[in-house]
Amino acid sequence: MKLSDFMRYKDEVIKLRRDFHMYPELGFEEERTSGIVRDYLNDLGITTRSMAKTGVVGYLNNGGEKTVGIRADMDALPIQEENNVPYRSQVPGKMHACGHDAHTAMLLVTSKILSETEFDGNIRLVFQPAEEGLNGASKMVEGGAIDGVDEIIGMHVWIGFPTATIAISPGPVLASVDRFKITVHGKGGHGAAPQDTADPIVTSSELIMALQTVVSRNVDPIDTAVVTVGKINGGTAFNIIPETVEMDGTVRTFTEEADKLIEKRIKVISEHIAKAHNCTADVEYLHLNHATVNDTRLAEIGKKVASQFTTVVEQGRAMGGEDFSEYASRIPGLFAYLGIGNPKKGFVYPHHNPRFDMDEDALPYGVAFETLMALKLLQ
Amino acid sequence: MKLSDFMRYKDEVIKLRRDFHMYPELGFEEERTSGIVRDYLNDLGITTRSMAKTGVVGYLNNGGEKTVGIRADMDALPIQEENNVPYRSQVPGKMHACGHDAHTAMLLVTSKILSETEFDGNIRLVFQPAEEGLNGASKMVEGGAIDGVDEIIGMHVWIGFPTATIAISPGPVLASVDRFKITVHGKGGHGAAPQDTADPIVTSSELIMALQTVVSRNVDPIDTAVVTVGKINGGTAFNIIPETVEMDGTVRTFTEEADKLIEKRIKVISEHIAKAHNCTADVEYLHLNHATVNDTRLAEIGKKVASQFTTVVEQGRAMGGEDFSEYASRIPGLFAYLGIGNPKKGFVYPHHNPRFDMDEDALPYGVAFETLMALKLLQ
Amino acid sequence: MKLSDFMRYKDEVIKLRRDFHMYPELGFEEERTSGIVRDYLNDLGITTRSMAKTGVVGYLNNGGEKTVGIRADMDALPIQEENNVPYRSQVPGKMHACGHDAHTAMLLVTSKILSETEFDGNIRLVFQPAEEGLNGASKMVEGGAIDGVDEIIGMHVWIGFPTATIAISPGPVLASVDRFKITVHGKGGHGAAPQDTADPIVTSSELIMALQTVVSRNVDPIDTAVVTVGKINGGTAFNIIPETVEMDGTVRTFTEEADKLIEKRIKVISEHIAKAHNCTADVEYLHLNHATVNDTRLAEIGKKVASQFTTVVEQGRAMGGEDFSEYASRIPGLFAYLGIGNPKKGFVYPHHNPRFDMDEDALPYGVAFETLMALKLLQ
Amino acid sequence: MKLSDFMRYKDEVIKLRRDFHMYPELGFEEERTSGIVRDYLNDLGITTRSMAKTGVVGYLNNGGEKTVGIRADMDALPIQEENNVPYRSQVPGKMHACGHDAHTAMLLVTSKILSETEFDGNIRLVFQPAEEGLNGASKMVEGGAIDGVDEIIGMHVWIGFPTATIAISPGPVLASVDRFKITVHGKGGHGAAPQDTADPIVTSSELIMALQTVVSRNVDPIDTAVVTVGKINGGTAFNIIPETVEMDGTVRTFTEEADKLIEKRIKVISEHIAKAHNCTADVEYLHLNHATVNDTRLAEIGKKVASQFTTVVEQGRAMGGEDFSEYASRIPGLFAYLGIGNPKKGFVYPHHNPRFDMDEDALPYGVAFETLMALKLLQ
Repeated sequence: MKLSDFMRYKDEVIKLRRDFHMYPELGFEEERTSGIVRDYLNDLGITTRSMAKTGVVGYLNNGGEKTVGIRADMDALPIQEENNVPYRSQVPGKMHACGHDAHTAMLLVTSKILSETEFDGNIRLVFQPAEEGLNGASKMVEGGAIDGVDEIIGMHVWIGFPTATIAISPGPVLASVDRFKITVHGKGGHGAAPQDTADPIVTSSELIMALQTVVSRNVDPIDTAVVTVGKINGGTAFNIIPETVEMDGTVRTFTEEADKLIEKRIKVISEHIAKAHNCTADVEYLHLNHATVNDTRLAEIGKKVASQFTTVVEQGRAMGGEDFSEYASRIPGLFAYLGIGNPKKGFVYPHHNPRFDMDEDALPYGVAFETLMALKLLQ
Repeated sequence: MKLSDFMRYKDEVIKLRRDFHMYPELGFEEERTSGIVRDYLNDLGITTRSMAKTGVVGYLNNGGEKTVGIRADMDALPIQEENNVPYRSQVPGKMHACGHDAHTAMLLVTSKILSETEFDGNIRLVFQPAEEGLNGASKMVEGGAIDGVDEIIGMHVWIGFPTATIAISPGPVLASVDRFKITVHGKGGHGAAPQDTADPIVTSSELIMALQTVVSRNVDPIDTAVVTVGKINGGTAFNIIPETVEMDGTVRTFTEEADKLIEKRIKVISEHIAKAHNCTADVEYLHLNHATVNDTRLAEIGKKVASQFTTVVEQGRAMGGEDFSEYASRIPGLFAYLGIGNPKKGFVYPHHNPRFDMDEDALPYGVAFETLMALKLLQ
Repeated sequence: MKLSDFMRYKDEVIKLRRDFHMYPELGFEEERTSGIVRDYLNDLGITTRSMAKTGVVGYLNNGGEKTVGIRADMDALPIQEENNVPYRSQVPGKMHACGHDAHTAMLLVTSKILSETEFDGNIRLVFQPAEEGLNGASKMVEGGAIDGVDEIIGMHVWIGFPTATIAISPGPVLASVDRFKITVHGKGGHGAAPQDTADPIVTSSELIMALQTVVSRNVDPIDTAVVTVGKINGGTAFNIIPETVEMDGTVRTFTEEADKLIEKRIKVISEHIAKAHNCTADVEYLHLNHATVNDTRLAEIGKKVASQFTTVVEQGRAMGGEDFSEYASRIPGLFAYLGIGNPKKGFVYPHHNPRFDMDEDALPYGVAFETLMALKLLQ
Repeated sequence: MKLSDFMRYKDEVIKLRRDFHMYPELGFEEERTSGIVRDYLNDLGITTRSMAKTGVVGYLNNGGEKTVGIRADMDALPIQEENNVPYRSQVPGKMHACGHDAHTAMLLVTSKILSETEFDGNIRLVFQPAEEGLNGASKMVEGGAIDGVDEIIGMHVWIGFPTATIAISPGPVLASVDRFKITVHGKGGHGAAPQDTADPIVTSSELIMALQTVVSRNVDPIDTAVVTVGKINGGTAFNIIPETVEMDGTVRTFTEEADKLIEKRIKVISEHIAKAHNCTADVEYLHLNHATVNDTRLAEIGKKVASQFTTVVEQGRAMGGEDFSEYASRIPGLFAYLGIGNPKKGFVYPHHNPRFDMDEDALPYGVAFETLMALKLLQ
């Protein structure tokens, strides 16, 4: 198949994307979207199964030993769109500001093309809900979405690359996401009598300074890591030393080793900075997402497939998180970017911005990549 | 006059105190209390004037050049009483937990005795509202309560001294009270991209550590000072670096010099710690109360007067604040403590505690001190 | 005895002081000085005993149960005098820059007057070496200098008070002096590989910030305390993280309670800040001098005695240390200041300054105080 | 040419390396070594020129437009060897503990082979002194060593890779090296009177904590950076607050952008932390070495050349510095590693360790790479 074979579907993929764009739904609420997906697949004769509340899995089974998965996410964001376009969001306060509308549209058209193509093997079409902070992927895995799948690919439209380029790198491309909550328990009292208290505000301040050393001293500088305290809250009055201070933060890494090291360091630092000041510290540490690590062989193949019809660039690393890692940490996976940025047309606003939009000319390239990649992996 | 001359009024002062105790009123809401005060004074033939909303001033003028003031405060606290006594508070959520009920009762009886005594000179009876954090005293001063007054005395019942002892020291006895609000303005952004932000949480943490050096390094160790941050608040989510962090705190000192130094240091530290981290800091600095400084001569006289009928001890310094300082910073003043602590009777709970109560045997001693001191100062 | 009885000795006390001034000797090297003292006392018929290397004790025993001690210190400082006076130091690099020359001269003349006076009781004349940082007093105590002594007085000339005033306060007047040495042991390594080290420089920095909270948060603000790190030393090269960092500091307090609290806090903070950063901390804590606390009764008597012939002022507190505390912590003691400051004559340079000098007109007043106080205490 | 063509020189390259190993010379003192180099090249008929004190450049010019450089460094380290081998260092306190003996030996043999080979173009043989911290490369550049050179290659033996593997990566492979010296000027004084001082020890401690935020907050986490304070020094006595504290540290980065950002941040932080505490800070910032960045095209070619005769691996990044960057920042360069690690033979001790040694079986592979790479680049 050549690029022109996919260009024929350009209008359809854009039409689908715009429809999803106009009716955005938040995570685990993708009723309308998943209904459209299910009907579309069923109309193609593809068996579907629902899972993870609003997730849909399509089974395009031609027999044979190998199964390849392709994944799209369907959820929107709680953002009020500020674009004035005919297809702007019709739902106040909700918007497809990350491009999942395009992901869903592309995978539907890919499904159509694949359903009309002869190949040996099986293709698993994974339409998942709730990628944005809710880890819908883990619910899909629990539901059996990738049972029997050998390899999986995913795509993300990306404003940082020019229209229709495809970006692929082997190894880690998106960071793991952890969350930590630290509560420092001191002893409250009158602000004029600090000697009768154990001041959790001063203790937390020192703790936050000490946490800076995790990245500056403890993590291998060749590794990449972030430790951020995003929230701090303590006290009710200017003249009362409070009992407790609460902090809430995030950790990003690309390796299991760095991740474990940081968790341990945060716990040790919290314990002892607190003890130094007659306080105690509770640390709750949650691993939300794994790092998204591209399989080296799949990345190699992906580069070859994409370079047949478009420009391929290095993807590099980003500190953002993706629950595609739930699949890619279990089976070989490839998460590639599709360039949608086009300054001449004004497509420059970053993801999650109220003015985010995309150069839709890119979409047939995404369909091409998904289709050709799946077929290649089944050869 | 001898102590026995005052003991005759013991039942009356206790009865008055218990009545006020049962019907506590918060600052600037002392309608019932000030009504009783006004009627009581008028019944004695003492002219009164209302000011500062619920304040009452009585004029006991016998002519002559000198005028001596005596001050009592009348307000209660927003605390639910936990004592089971016949005279417990009848108002849910309000309680005379600092002893102002006793102050009002003592000054009424003092007024009665003085109105029945021959002396040359004038006595100003100052019943003020809203001592607890609202600086009712400043409103009384504005209203003219101490216009023409040469010297003023005040008393505070104090659980830390045994019943009926009187504590007096020359010089500073209660601290000045300042409040500072610091807002650190940074640049918000994604928690995974600190390089694009100016992190106000880390900056505020370093600022709070730096503020510790004001007391540890900048203030003369012979001086006494406290700098407390009682409240810190910043951020809305674990993975977002916020725009701002807000801190709210208090400063206590006994000298003008230390007070000015600390204000300046807080401003300089805030400005430059913020600048070091590409942030800015707004500092709002409010001087709420002056230090309460006893006039040396009045303290000397007070000790002699009190030692005629009870035990006199050194008062020492406390970091708490008092708006009696509004008077004592304008004219010579003496603020003395009357011991009401009695572990055998269970009177041990600190001021502002829901179980605070007092050994009422002390009250006639307070009346004696006020009466004899006023007469002594008019000789 | 009247002041004029002491004024007769003015020339002698000045002559003696100037002689000592010209030949200053450092701590435990006061050979010449103590030889003069011994001879002087022996010539008066006073028995002497040597102890603490260069200390001399004189025994003026008239029998009776009570013994009163008077103490002078004799050592000079390693400072090059910059005054151009006839009696300037003849010893390069050494100078009586703290006034111990006057202390010795005054006590000699006091000894002479007392030896010519009738009284009941015994007087112990304590001439000690090495007050400046070497704690000669403790050696005198070990040697038996105050065995059998009931009460002891000492005087210090003081540039901060005008000539001939005498300053006395009850309670603590000079601080206790402690020394602490903290060694932080980390793990050294290449400066480009912090992940393989435990960085003792960062850890020590955080430790020093945490130590600021001892004074700002832990000590009662009414108490007076200082915690100073005077020295920090770690590392040999810009690109090597060292194994250890050493810190050396001092603590000043006026109460045993604050002293113990601070020692404990320094140890707890050091232990846990080190642990937070995978380091360990050794803390060596030395109590060098007690606080100098004047006995209340002796202070009362001292004020009365001094006010017979000169102006008496409050002494206040100073953070400096004095080994007179070695005596005053064992038996009731009184350490008074004799004013020697006189701006008109140019006597304004502080103690330990190369231009320090004194208004010698004050010296007979010191002799008077020592003499009259000793006699008063023996009555 | 095949690998066996180079294996014939194995004995010679080992013999040369051992000779250099036995007589190590420090930077700019490589008299004996450079003498041997000069004679060896001259014997081959290669013209030489001396520069940079003990540097030697050989000119193997066959005409043509292109010139390719090959660089070896010759200096040893001030380390006492602890190996017991026949060829151990004969010079007390000096040792080839980084493998420069092998670099020199390999390039000599490469020169011999190339001098016996027909090719078009010119080869520049760069034997430089003083790579270890003295930046001998910059002196060679000043001397004209790479004037007219189009591309340059260098090799470093590396214990972290198995014998005879060759490690190559495009882009940055070794960090830039900066040095910063910060002097905090405060106001000294007595340790008991911090209020009269500006304490540079506390200020420096806070400064060091603030410097941690440069890596933890300011540098893009995808970039790699280190900021280390290796040395801190201030104060002379436990009870004196000093005037100044001196710090000395290093910065490592891989990009010009990160390097400039860090220099700026260190200066801003130092200025304002100092100002916050009434101190001033002097910052001296020195750029010692650029990052060593491999040219992408040369890396590509290098991988192909090396994979003809040995295993090629990714080189990755290391935070160490190399003055090869002096060449590679001016003309396209390639700095490759030659594996010499062999646990079975005990070759496991890291570079700069007194027991460092190498598996000499690797050396003919290094000769092969240098020779074949030079010839390839001249084609």
